[in-house]
Amino acid sequence: MNDLMKHTVKAFSDELEKLSADVSVMGGLAENAVASAMQAVINRDAELAEQVIEADAEIDKMQREIEKQIIRLLALRQPMASDLRSVIAALKIVADLERTGDLAKSIARRTRVLIKSDPLPLTPAVERMGLLVQGHLHQVLDAYATGETASAVGVWERDEDVDEHYNALFRDVIAQMMEDPSVVGPGAHLLFVAKNLERIGDHATNIAEVIHYVVTGNELKGERPRGPRPELPE
Amino acid sequence: MNDLMKHTVKAFSDELEKLSADVSVMGGLAENAVASAMQAVINRDAELAEQVIEADAEIDKMQREIEKQIIRLLALRQPMASDLRSVIAALKIVADLERTGDLAKSIARRTRVLIKSDPLPLTPAVERMGLLVQGHLHQVLDAYATGETASAVGVWERDEDVDEHYNALFRDVIAQMMEDPSVVGPGAHLLFVAKNLERIGDHATNIAEVIHYVVTGNELKGERPRGPRPELPE
Repeated sequence: MNDLMKHTVKAFSDELEKLSADVSVMGGLAENAVASAMQAVINRDAELAEQVIEADAEIDKMQREIEKQIIRLLALRQPMASDLRSVIAALKIVADLERTGDLAKSIARRTRVLIKSDPLPLTPAVERMGLLVQGHLHQVLDAYATGETASAVGVWERDEDVDEHYNALFRDVIAQMMEDPSVVGPGAHLLFVAKNLERIGDHATNIAEVIHYVVTGNELKGERPRGPRPELPE
Repeated sequence: MNDLMKHTVKAFSDELEKLSADVSVMGGLAENAVASAMQAVINRDAELAEQVIEADAEIDKMQREIEKQIIRLLALRQPMASDLRSVIAALKIVADLERTGDLAKSIARRTRVLIKSDPLPLTPAVERMGLLVQGHLHQVLDAYATGETASAVGVWERDEDVDEHYNALFRDVIAQMMEDPSVVGPGAHLLFVAKNLERIGDHATNIAEVIHYVVTGNELKGERPRGPRPELPE
C-alpha cells in the first residue's frame, strides 16, 4: 500500500468513526428528550416541557447534518460490503431518532394541556411504562456504540412488554373516563402519551433490527417472536 | 464511449428506472391500503378490514426488497450527484410508505373494535379527513412518478389543512365522550383513527420534501410555512 492509499484508507475510517460518533450524540439527545418529557409529565413541570419542545430543533438539525455527511461519504468513498451496511444503518437510525425526538416533543406538548386539570391517578403506570421504554432506548444505543448484538436482540424480543403495559394502561384510562366525564379530556391526552411511548419502544426495536443487520449482514427473520400482536383493548 | 461503457450506462439507467417503478408500485399498495382501511371504517366492513391487515405483509416485503435493490445498486454502480440523490430518496420514500401501510393496518384493526358498538355520528368528518389525506398521498406519488415538484410543494404547503381537520374532529369526539360514557371506548379508537390519518398526511408531506430535494438538490427550507403548529385542543 503506498502512502496516498494509506492516507485515503485512514481518512475513510476516520469518517466512518465520526459518523458513528455523531449518531451516538444524536441518540443521547433523543434519550434526553424522552427522559425530560416524561419528567415534565410526571412532575407537571411546564418549564421543562417547553425546554423539550424547543430542544427538538437541535435533533432535527443533527439529522440533516448527518444525512449530508452520509451522502458525501457515499459519493466520495463509495463504501462496500460492511462499510456500506454501516452507512445505510446510520441513515436509518437517525430517522428513528428524529421520530423519537418528535414523539418526546409531542409528550411535552400534551404536558401543557395535562397540567391544566387535576392529576390523574394513573401517573405511576405511565411512569413505569416510560422507564421501560427509556431502558430499551438506552440499551439499543449502547449496543450501537459497542456493536454488541446480543443486547439489541434482547430489546427486540422484549418489545411485547411495552405493548402489554400500553394495553393495560389504555384499559385503565378508558375505565376512568367512563366513570367521570371531567377525566375525558386529560384522559385522552394521557392515552396519546402512552401511545407515544409505545411508538418510541417501536423505534428502539427498529434500531435493534438495524444493528443486527449491520453486525451480521442478516435480517432478524420474520415477525417478532411474540406471536400475534395482542388484540386492541375495547 | 466504447461498447462496454455504453452497456454499463444503459444497465445502470435501467436499474434506476426499475427502482423508481418499484417505488411507485409500493406507493400504489400503500394508497390502496389507506383507501380500503377508510372504506372498512366507514362501511363497518369487518371483512375488508381483515384484508387490509393481511395485505400489509406485502408492503413490508416490498420495502425489504427495494432496500436490497438499493444497497446492491450503491455497491455496484456507485452513483453520483443526482443519481445518488434519487437512490437515497427512494430509500426514504419506501420508509414513509411502509409506515403509511402500518397506519392503514392500525385503522383496520380499530375497525374491528369500532363495529362492536353503535356507529358514532362523526363518521362523515372522519370520511372527509380520510379523503383529504388520500388526496395528498395520491398527489405526491404522482409527483414522484412525473418529477413534478410544484404539486409536491403544494401538498407540503397544505399539510395544515389536515391538522385543522384533526383538531376539529378531536374536539367533537371529546365532547361526545363527555356527554355519553358509552361513547368513551369507541370514541378513543376513533381519536386514534384520526391521529393515524394525520400521521399519513405527515408521511405524504415527508415524501413531498424528498421529491423536492431530488429534483432541485435543495431542501425545502426550515419549518413548513404554516406558522406554529396549532395548539392541541383541550
